[in-house]
Amino acid sequence: MIFGACYYPEQWNPKDWDEDLKIMKEMGLSSVRLAEFAWGLMEPKEGKFDFSLFDAVLKKVQDHGMTAILGTPTATFPPWLYKKFPEIVQVSKEGIIRGIGTRRQACFSSPAYQKATERIVTAMAKHFGNHPAVVGWQIDNEPGHEGSDVDYSPLALKNFRTWLKTKYKNLDSLNKRWGNIFWGVIYSDWNEIPLPAAHVASNFNPAMIQDYYRFQSDELVSYIHFQAEILRKYSKGKPLTTNLYPSPFLPVTDMAELFSKLDYVSWDNYPVWGNQQEPYPHPLVTATQQYSRGLKNKPYTVMEQFSGVQGHDTLGYLPPPGQIGLWLTQAIVNGANQIYFFRYRTARFGQEQLCYGILDHGKRKTHKYFELKKTIEDINEFASDIADSPYKAEVAILHDIENSRNYKHQPLSDALKFSPVPFAQVGYDIELATWFAGTNVLNVNAHSLPISAENDWSKYKVLTLPLYTMFDPSIVEKLKTYVANGGTLVLGYRAGIKDKDHWMVEEPVPGVFGEMTGVEVFQFEAPATDKVGIRMGILPLKGSKFCEILEPTTAKVVARYNDSKKFYSGKAAITVNSFGKGKVYYVGTSLTPESFILLYRKILKGAGVPFGFLGATIERHYREGKQFNYEITMNHSNRYKLAGLSILKPFGYKLKRIPK
Amino acid sequence: MIFGACYYPEQWNPKDWDEDLKIMKEMGLSSVRLAEFAWGLMEPKEGKFDFSLFDAVLKKVQDHGMTAILGTPTATFPPWLYKKFPEIVQVSKEGIIRGIGTRRQACFSSPAYQKATERIVTAMAKHFGNHPAVVGWQIDNEPGHEGSDVDYSPLALKNFRTWLKTKYKNLDSLNKRWGNIFWGVIYSDWNEIPLPAAHVASNFNPAMIQDYYRFQSDELVSYIHFQAEILRKYSKGKPLTTNLYPSPFLPVTDMAELFSKLDYVSWDNYPVWGNQQEPYPHPLVTATQQYSRGLKNKPYTVMEQFSGVQGHDTLGYLPPPGQIGLWLTQAIVNGANQIYFFRYRTARFGQEQLCYGILDHGKRKTHKYFELKKTIEDINEFASDIADSPYKAEVAILHDIENSRNYKHQPLSDALKFSPVPFAQVGYDIELATWFAGTNVLNVNAHSLPISAENDWSKYKVLTLPLYTMFDPSIVEKLKTYVANGGTLVLGYRAGIKDKDHWMVEEPVPGVFGEMTGVEVFQFEAPATDKVGIRMGILPLKGSKFCEILEPTTAKVVARYNDSKKFYSGKAAITVNSFGKGKVYYVGTSLTPESFILLYRKILKGAGVPFGFLGATIERHYREGKQFNYEITMNHSNRYKLAGLSILKPFGYKLKRIPK
Amino acid sequence: MIFGACYYPEQWNPKDWDEDLKIMKEMGLSSVRLAEFAWGLMEPKEGKFDFSLFDAVLKKVQDHGMTAILGTPTATFPPWLYKKFPEIVQVSKEGIIRGIGTRRQACFSSPAYQKATERIVTAMAKHFGNHPAVVGWQIDNEPGHEGSDVDYSPLALKNFRTWLKTKYKNLDSLNKRWGNIFWGVIYSDWNEIPLPAAHVASNFNPAMIQDYYRFQSDELVSYIHFQAEILRKYSKGKPLTTNLYPSPFLPVTDMAELFSKLDYVSWDNYPVWGNQQEPYPHPLVTATQQYSRGLKNKPYTVMEQFSGVQGHDTLGYLPPPGQIGLWLTQAIVNGANQIYFFRYRTARFGQEQLCYGILDHGKRKTHKYFELKKTIEDINEFASDIADSPYKAEVAILHDIENSRNYKHQPLSDALKFSPVPFAQVGYDIELATWFAGTNVLNVNAHSLPISAENDWSKYKVLTLPLYTMFDPSIVEKLKTYVANGGTLVLGYRAGIKDKDHWMVEEPVPGVFGEMTGVEVFQFEAPATDKVGIRMGILPLKGSKFCEILEPTTAKVVARYNDSKKFYSGKAAITVNSFGKGKVYYVGTSLTPESFILLYRKILKGAGVPFGFLGATIERHYREGKQFNYEITMNHSNRYKLAGLSILKPFGYKLKRIPK
Repeated sequence: MIFGACYYPEQWNPKDWDEDLKIMKEMGLSSVRLAEFAWGLMEPKEGKFDFSLFDAVLKKVQDHGMTAILGTPTATFPPWLYKKFPEIVQVSKEGIIRGIGTRRQACFSSPAYQKATERIVTAMAKHFGNHPAVVGWQIDNEPGHEGSDVDYSPLALKNFRTWLKTKYKNLDSLNKRWGNIFWGVIYSDWNEIPLPAAHVASNFNPAMIQDYYRFQSDELVSYIHFQAEILRKYSKGKPLTTNLYPSPFLPVTDMAELFSKLDYVSWDNYPVWGNQQEPYPHPLVTATQQYSRGLKNKPYTVMEQFSGVQGHDTLGYLPPPGQIGLWLTQAIVNGANQIYFFRYRTARFGQEQLCYGILDHGKRKTHKYFELKKTIEDINEFASDIADSPYKAEVAILHDIENSRNYKHQPLSDALKFSPVPFAQVGYDIELATWFAGTNVLNVNAHSLPISAENDWSKYKVLTLPLYTMFDPSIVEKLKTYVANGGTLVLGYRAGIKDKDHWMVEEPVPGVFGEMTGVEVFQFEAPATDKVGIRMGILPLKGSKFCEILEPTTAKVVARYNDSKKFYSGKAAITVNSFGKGKVYYVGTSLTPESFILLYRKILKGAGVPFGFLGATIERHYREGKQFNYEITMNHSNRYKLAGLSILKPFGYKLKRIPK
Repeated sequence: MIFGACYYPEQWNPKDWDEDLKIMKEMGLSSVRLAEFAWGLMEPKEGKFDFSLFDAVLKKVQDHGMTAILGTPTATFPPWLYKKFPEIVQVSKEGIIRGIGTRRQACFSSPAYQKATERIVTAMAKHFGNHPAVVGWQIDNEPGHEGSDVDYSPLALKNFRTWLKTKYKNLDSLNKRWGNIFWGVIYSDWNEIPLPAAHVASNFNPAMIQDYYRFQSDELVSYIHFQAEILRKYSKGKPLTTNLYPSPFLPVTDMAELFSKLDYVSWDNYPVWGNQQEPYPHPLVTATQQYSRGLKNKPYTVMEQFSGVQGHDTLGYLPPPGQIGLWLTQAIVNGANQIYFFRYRTARFGQEQLCYGILDHGKRKTHKYFELKKTIEDINEFASDIADSPYKAEVAILHDIENSRNYKHQPLSDALKFSPVPFAQVGYDIELATWFAGTNVLNVNAHSLPISAENDWSKYKVLTLPLYTMFDPSIVEKLKTYVANGGTLVLGYRAGIKDKDHWMVEEPVPGVFGEMTGVEVFQFEAPATDKVGIRMGILPLKGSKFCEILEPTTAKVVARYNDSKKFYSGKAAITVNSFGKGKVYYVGTSLTPESFILLYRKILKGAGVPFGFLGATIERHYREGKQFNYEITMNHSNRYKLAGLSILKPFGYKLKRIPK
Repeated sequence: MIFGACYYPEQWNPKDWDEDLKIMKEMGLSSVRLAEFAWGLMEPKEGKFDFSLFDAVLKKVQDHGMTAILGTPTATFPPWLYKKFPEIVQVSKEGIIRGIGTRRQACFSSPAYQKATERIVTAMAKHFGNHPAVVGWQIDNEPGHEGSDVDYSPLALKNFRTWLKTKYKNLDSLNKRWGNIFWGVIYSDWNEIPLPAAHVASNFNPAMIQDYYRFQSDELVSYIHFQAEILRKYSKGKPLTTNLYPSPFLPVTDMAELFSKLDYVSWDNYPVWGNQQEPYPHPLVTATQQYSRGLKNKPYTVMEQFSGVQGHDTLGYLPPPGQIGLWLTQAIVNGANQIYFFRYRTARFGQEQLCYGILDHGKRKTHKYFELKKTIEDINEFASDIADSPYKAEVAILHDIENSRNYKHQPLSDALKFSPVPFAQVGYDIELATWFAGTNVLNVNAHSLPISAENDWSKYKVLTLPLYTMFDPSIVEKLKTYVANGGTLVLGYRAGIKDKDHWMVEEPVPGVFGEMTGVEVFQFEAPATDKVGIRMGILPLKGSKFCEILEPTTAKVVARYNDSKKFYSGKAAITVNSFGKGKVYYVGTSLTPESFILLYRKILKGAGVPFGFLGATIERHYREGKQFNYEITMNHSNRYKLAGLSILKPFGYKLKRIPK
């Protein structure tokens, strides 16, 4: 288990460096992340390198017996590069040029940028690649963040046309598979194909938009992999990662593919940011931890862990005493084996002078310093015992980048839209997290897995799969096998009706899942955020967002609509069907969190998965370590809470050792 | 009476065509609309035509004893045309280029587009113009829809300057009539005149904006008329129309002028669309039906009639059983003699894969199919008896495109703004529909007529004229004659104070109507959506949006403000004045719908027009047929309702035959 | 005391001019403002001048024994100038070109515009500069209004780079002081520096934005001063001003510097505008009157005084009888010695045909005419007695343009943002006005002074200084001296922690005020608009927007947080510290207006300043005249109100003469 901090020695007086590292060590930190925004410092003129500052810092890091992860500094580039190659930058959907002065400008499709990247990364890799204090690399920084996952520049268009040529070979095929006969947009020349950028009223062909997202993902992924190749060559044996910007903001890039050629997953964990008045609910934080863990299904890193209030130009919520420590504990419990705090000391200048770190703008030790130091001391033994062990689970939620993309541009219901910032529409991610929360609140260890990854599903008793509208036939087969062999599948509404070319199937909803689910759907509506009454036995549930009227063929009804305002009151809303040795639940609506808990109790019970509700703010996980097994119970409330027989302090946790 | 469907054979397997037509016939349909988005198919390369697909389809249509309306396909054009003439597209007010990939891109002012239009329309007209199955043409598709009624392209600016030269002859005249002395914007060269496009803070001269809307209307209308000339030449005797996008979204184009050279009006009737959680109230649907009927004051067509839930990327309300049938009945009752359902089968691909038709994505017959089939069977005899008869009415509402334009850019009160989509501000239309609703809810047959059209008003007992701020002196004279001869005129606030050059008159409100109304107004406010109390005898009314303090000269007070929050409590709000043999009501505020009903009861009673309120969801019309007269009572609620002595089923109707 | 009107003879028939001036005189007006939008009239072609219209008008003005202020007409320019120099216009942050047709287009950085300005202003100054009826000049019109205070044009960028060169001398200095090491934006060429214009996600460096605002202010100020030089040369002895657009919309331009080379301050007073449903609260109007008065700390002018409802395309509130008269009285009481009504008669055409004047569109005298005439007659003797006397006060609020700029781009809390229109973010101004209101409601004469101006603070018993985050060391010293000598300073949260280069200090909040305040702050949150409970003795207060947890070192606690939802309940929220002979209150949160009154009672009492609360709608001022002293009590309510022993009519006032 490694604790560290994001450290920016270039922003401080060199005579402070020694003291900084000393203070970190005393706190229990043994590693720093360095250099990920320092291109301008390391290559002040084209081809002229100056690594002296980080040489000096790494010497000191080594002297203190600490280690460093180096970031390649490609998330911003020096102004001279833009002056020479003005075409190097992205263009937003609305046509705003991503000029210099902010960050994440670079166009992944730009040859000039690729060449400049090759130069700086090669130089860094050669210079630092075998330094004994360097224990790995973070490639770029939050690639795709702040809308940079979709670029509408002329160079992107050029590459998109090439990408399409590779995929479709000829225009007849593209015209047919996109369905360009619709509105008569039949292309007779590859260069007629436009960008699906800002438009006035009607939208672009959905198959085209889906392809554009796939293409953009490919551009970003191949850019990161291109850096990985360089690093592997000159910095042999040093593990590689990149850091995901806070999930769930990620509907375009295929993160599973991104990490397929990297060694481990890392992500940036800010349970509260900017002007938020409340932090994310704890199940959402765990959902994103598990999303990160699940990408490679093994221990992962939090590369930026919240240590103080954060904001670019406005602030919000202040965590009460104990909460930042508990968020650290929560990360460890979920399977992180490296955690770097963001950041050691707060910048006195620049765009993030309101992003507070462990220390404030001065050097005085803060309450945050002492709280995190104490947490590290308390948790360290447990953390070290479990750090390299798998996070075991009997249930999993499956997510799919293709459907995340699909729901970004075709959200189906106003309530499946969610745009926390103008450049993001992450309704799919929020819906997935909500379904995940159902098991989390019942204190069941749960995995979150990319549906396309090579995982063995047979070890799971229950798989949950919401919003699986666009289907992959091989996945459908794998699910059939899973259920036929005794698994329980919980399938969400609008499943199985769209192929990868974005064509709707001829069969009624749930399309290719008709036999497995034993239901047919001919009528549906999208009541947005209105709640629709449902009854499961004597239990009242609520649905919203989308309501399908289920007509069972072979399925049994689990719950029925029960709402005097709705003509379909009395019709089936949730069903269950036997298929082989297993069962398929079909949930024809988006349940409220409370309702989902009630349903999930029934499902888990049937599948033989132990669970228990301990209160809305209590989270319990089970972990196996090298020496002991553990039951960890956390209280995410600022009040004393009873959890089973234990009383937990505000933001406290209880660790129960279970002999192996 | 003709029932048909919008049919896209190009989107389906040719081997399905026969079955498709057979299913339509069985349902009671005898006609299809074809080809309005198929330019790319029919002219795959410039000047190279391929009509084989529609030849084959029309053969089958004929074989089944059915007919077809053909659409000219100019609402989208082939990508090769844009590649050759990139200047061919519109530019939005905000500067977004309407590139290809969506629809309605073409700039009506572009010579290249006009030439390409001439080529395809001539070729189609020559090829299909005398086909026995072809019974008419729809020119273009929803011209002006989705903001394409106002174009800010360089070619539009060029034509605008020419248009101004034609209108004003010299710049002195333009400068004087626009009032360019204001803020000193005095033009000394025609080429100095800019587009009234996006701006930062203050607006452009209102007279200029009004002229820009007039110019844009002229461009659109002459484009459609240009197509009409070609069709008349090569397809003699086949009636021409174009289809209006759903009213009331039409503040720029002069629709009366548009149809002046066409044979009949058609429009697209979607009582609910996209993410709406409720359909439009039934009086609004009838208001738009009557708006369409009134443009030529004769039977009309619904070219696209709702047959399933619709949306581009999100959905909403699902009509309960019976409602789509009732919407069909409502269209017939209002005077439609041709109705085409949109659409036969739901597209499996493309931007409208969520626009559900009579059939879903598959070929299975749906509940919608059976409901519409049954409705057609039930209504057919009645429909055929009245189809070609006039819709008789003793009251009418008058609307005016000049004031619709005026209120689009100068809405006067925040509550007279309504932008259901960013490119539309249709507060005028909504206000008119609200005043119309007053008579509709009282179950009085009512016409909705363009004020400029050559209609004989002497047959109406009551004319309603809201928001007639910009006046035409000849209309004022016609109104005077109407009232002097015994008519009752209901005039709305802010009447008669602005000439066609957008100059305010020197007289107090209601300006040129001072003598007719017998009131003067010196003080007014715009309370937006706040409600202001009024009392008419013992009846409490409510006004909002705009409140004028009426000072009667010769008028009698009908109602007074009665609101302790307002200093003008006690002052007149509504007056009536005798003028010749008739009466002029002046309504100094926008009444709430309930209040308007109370006022209208008084007005109708005085004018000797029979009426009767049967409940908020009941709509009754009176029609005269060839064989019988009819009283038709519809229940727009999903509950059983008592209407007079009849109990109506949810979404049911009752047809009472009255011997002639 | 001078009363006048804004008059646009160019918009009216010359034969009306005599009657117009006669009507004004009868009303009590003796002056007109002329010509500020008439460039196109006076220079119809480049270099060809025609002053005949205003010659004729000034002749008549003189004949009637009246005077005129002339406006230089540079707020709009003739279209021919734009045709010749298309680069002459501003560009908005979002990239919208400020083309002609509206107003305030001109780019202050454009040499062509400066040259054209020199030509017209010189010609006007030579022609009219010594006319006996001309009593002064208004330079331009509302410079900076409607977002024209920040220009993102290419010419602005060019001048910005030059401005930076002048300020920083070399790029090393700029890179260091901006902190460009952050995100690695290190410039190696002046021409690499971009505009801080529209961007996609992250913002520009705050030091850069702050400099951009300073630069823009310099451009605007030097443009106005450039005109002043010309006028001083050719129109010797005639006083100069410019008119501020309605405060508090002014976060970029340094208005104190703007007026440093002009003779008196004038501003445009619209207590209600456009679609507002309520006028501004009376303390906000007084706050802006005092802001205007305080810029030069002497009598000032209201150049446009509300005389009728105003709007560009929508209207709102109608002032009840008496209110426009009371707003006139309020201006006089606050120290205005010249008041021009906007406008004499309402324009019949153009963008402001809904901006109603004293007369409406016709020539008939209105109720507004008679109300203002009566008010002038009643108030004139008092007004003349006090017009040239100082407005005396023992308390003052200090505002600072640097912090206004800072909070525009870094507002810290969502509740410190306020954007009444898209181009303005004036949260600072609103917060300042709110703190000012605390003293106004207690009926204490109060000044509002630019902190940088050369005022003697020793005469004030209490100084209030909110949001003084960015500090000037010399001001800190001046404040220390002020308090040390016995003054009472009320310092707001987040004080003293940022230097002029936008660097945060190393010390905890309140930074450089640590010793004076005797507190330290390590924790804070921004609860936005949520209210947080506080207790001062037995009095319950409420804070919001920002809450600091105060840790007293030498200070005494005045109030503590008292809110069960907050972990910092019980911690200090407001403190007081003795420093020298004086006291420093530190207020760690933004109090609600009611709470601030309670606190201010305590502070004023301690400082020996008399005060008294007479009700929320009552405002009382004390003025010294040449013959008498006065206590003036105004009732801003539309009800009768008791104020002390007097009963005041709705919108009435009471003038109490006190022998000197």
